[in-house]
Amino acid sequence: MGGDKAPGEIVRGARTVAEAGAIGVVLVGLPGGMGDTGDLPLIECSEVIGMDDDPGHGVRRKKDSSLVRAAEAVRDGRAMAMVSAGNTGATMASALLRMGRLPGVIRPAIATPIPDLKKSYPTVMLDAGANAEASVPMLLQFAQMGAAYSTARYGVARPRVALLSIGEEKSKGTPLIKETHALLAQGGHGEFDFVGNVEGRDFFDDQADVIVTDGFTGNVALKTLEGTLRFLMAALGEIFSRPEAAEAAGALLPHLMPLASALDPETTGGAMLLGVDGVCVISHGSSTSVAMVNAITVAHDVAVGGMVAAIAASVRPTGDEPADTPD
Amino acid sequence: MGGDKAPGEIVRGARTVAEAGAIGVVLVGLPGGMGDTGDLPLIECSEVIGMDDDPGHGVRRKKDSSLVRAAEAVRDGRAMAMVSAGNTGATMASALLRMGRLPGVIRPAIATPIPDLKKSYPTVMLDAGANAEASVPMLLQFAQMGAAYSTARYGVARPRVALLSIGEEKSKGTPLIKETHALLAQGGHGEFDFVGNVEGRDFFDDQADVIVTDGFTGNVALKTLEGTLRFLMAALGEIFSRPEAAEAAGALLPHLMPLASALDPETTGGAMLLGVDGVCVISHGSSTSVAMVNAITVAHDVAVGGMVAAIAASVRPTGDEPADTPD
Repeated sequence: MGGDKAPGEIVRGARTVAEAGAIGVVLVGLPGGMGDTGDLPLIECSEVIGMDDDPGHGVRRKKDSSLVRAAEAVRDGRAMAMVSAGNTGATMASALLRMGRLPGVIRPAIATPIPDLKKSYPTVMLDAGANAEASVPMLLQFAQMGAAYSTARYGVARPRVALLSIGEEKSKGTPLIKETHALLAQGGHGEFDFVGNVEGRDFFDDQADVIVTDGFTGNVALKTLEGTLRFLMAALGEIFSRPEAAEAAGALLPHLMPLASALDPETTGGAMLLGVDGVCVISHGSSTSVAMVNAITVAHDVAVGGMVAAIAASVRPTGDEPADTPD
Repeated sequence: MGGDKAPGEIVRGARTVAEAGAIGVVLVGLPGGMGDTGDLPLIECSEVIGMDDDPGHGVRRKKDSSLVRAAEAVRDGRAMAMVSAGNTGATMASALLRMGRLPGVIRPAIATPIPDLKKSYPTVMLDAGANAEASVPMLLQFAQMGAAYSTARYGVARPRVALLSIGEEKSKGTPLIKETHALLAQGGHGEFDFVGNVEGRDFFDDQADVIVTDGFTGNVALKTLEGTLRFLMAALGEIFSRPEAAEAAGALLPHLMPLASALDPETTGGAMLLGVDGVCVISHGSSTSVAMVNAITVAHDVAVGGMVAAIAASVRPTGDEPADTPD
């Protein structure tokens, strides 16, 4: 039910996957409210949490909403994973409250793939917005979970983990960043190598496989990156559509398409909520059927590949994190 | 003496401005260490603070460095403004320690112009990195100083001031952002209109004239924006340089140049340190002579235009800021 182009594009993507035969897809939504769902099985619900609804309130009040029911389906083993293009906060809250956190995880984090054309797989940035504030133990766990995710999803044997800061030197940044840097630099936190700080300009420069940051900074950086790409693509599109540029633009198109495609968020399969006891893929609100196909495929692949178990094994309580806070 | 292309490009830019005749330029540097300086007067020094030197140590220990001497020249009225493409932190520290803060200013901030093609003047973002941490009174002052700067430099009568956050709603963000939002929303803080939160994707979307943030987030956002632009420009450059694309690329070039030029940081004239008692322009480390010409011209224009007095008048002690901290 969620996403700017729901239900049409969402259902179309789901049907495309199901009709290919390798992955089973279950829809969760309002009966009669999803258009032509073909032969897809449906978990019925009576409520929808809107894009603008408050996530916490929505999840607590709308217990028969599509998001809550989808998370319950994963919890109860009726689905291997959930995928949503709807309200991001409510998707997170549904997954957190119904699937629960993995043992020892302080807070789940949103891991977002960022294409880096200098290598054959994306860089994982987390947290992209699940937690506006973070602590040192949380950032350590983000490093551990992000590394496990990079290995599970992209096959990176020993991921390079970096901390997002405002200078390469360990003395740069907030006290949170400096303390986390010192802790990570000690090593011994898991199957990854800490490569120090990276800056905002390093996203496309093959500096790291995992970039760790708090959810406020990560969300600002991700939206700045996406917004800048979108702005420049739109500016180029305007130029290419000028009549006097049409011929040249046509000749360049075959050269430009691979670049545009590599940078298109639709192709990356969506962000992943790490730290909950189940697979939860958070797709862009603007997702089309193509984005849905990719997101569902990724959700299936990581579920089959044992990603959740790998994430659970990566988090080692360090003994100095604060007591678990209630959700 | 500072900048990746110093002294050659820096001196060349300075000479270009001076030879045009409208603006007097004084160099500060090592005698004999600046190449051909033509007829330009020179304030001699015996030391240089390097790009990688620790800013605080550098300024305290190298009292006869070009940066410290340049700031002293402004303090003593031998120059109207200083311009540096060198060590950003040391430039800031020199200006702060030698020119001093304006009355009531808690901390100076770096204001960076960001081109927004949907309007005829750039958006000012501050703080772009002077302070890794901020408080509510600091962010309020950044709003006041940024608005005064937008008016003084770009003639915006009543700038729209926004707060950088992770959602439009006032409930989004860190406690710092939420408290600052509530304070700014009360109004009555100066000659500007608070338009609420903006997100990282809104930089190119004519949402605000001034975007306020702490120096950590602002630095990450700015470098992400610049890095994304640079990456995409380089990727396009690679495509256009392919032999089979050469003809089409040549035909498109006249259409693309205005866009590339509008987005080139060299054309914006550099960032400005606001809140010190003098004009201090911080140019990109990669500045060429073209960037220097623009930076010197901007420095001259805002000095003549009374920017410092306008900034001083914009800051109204609210009574609830913490005691002035020592530098």
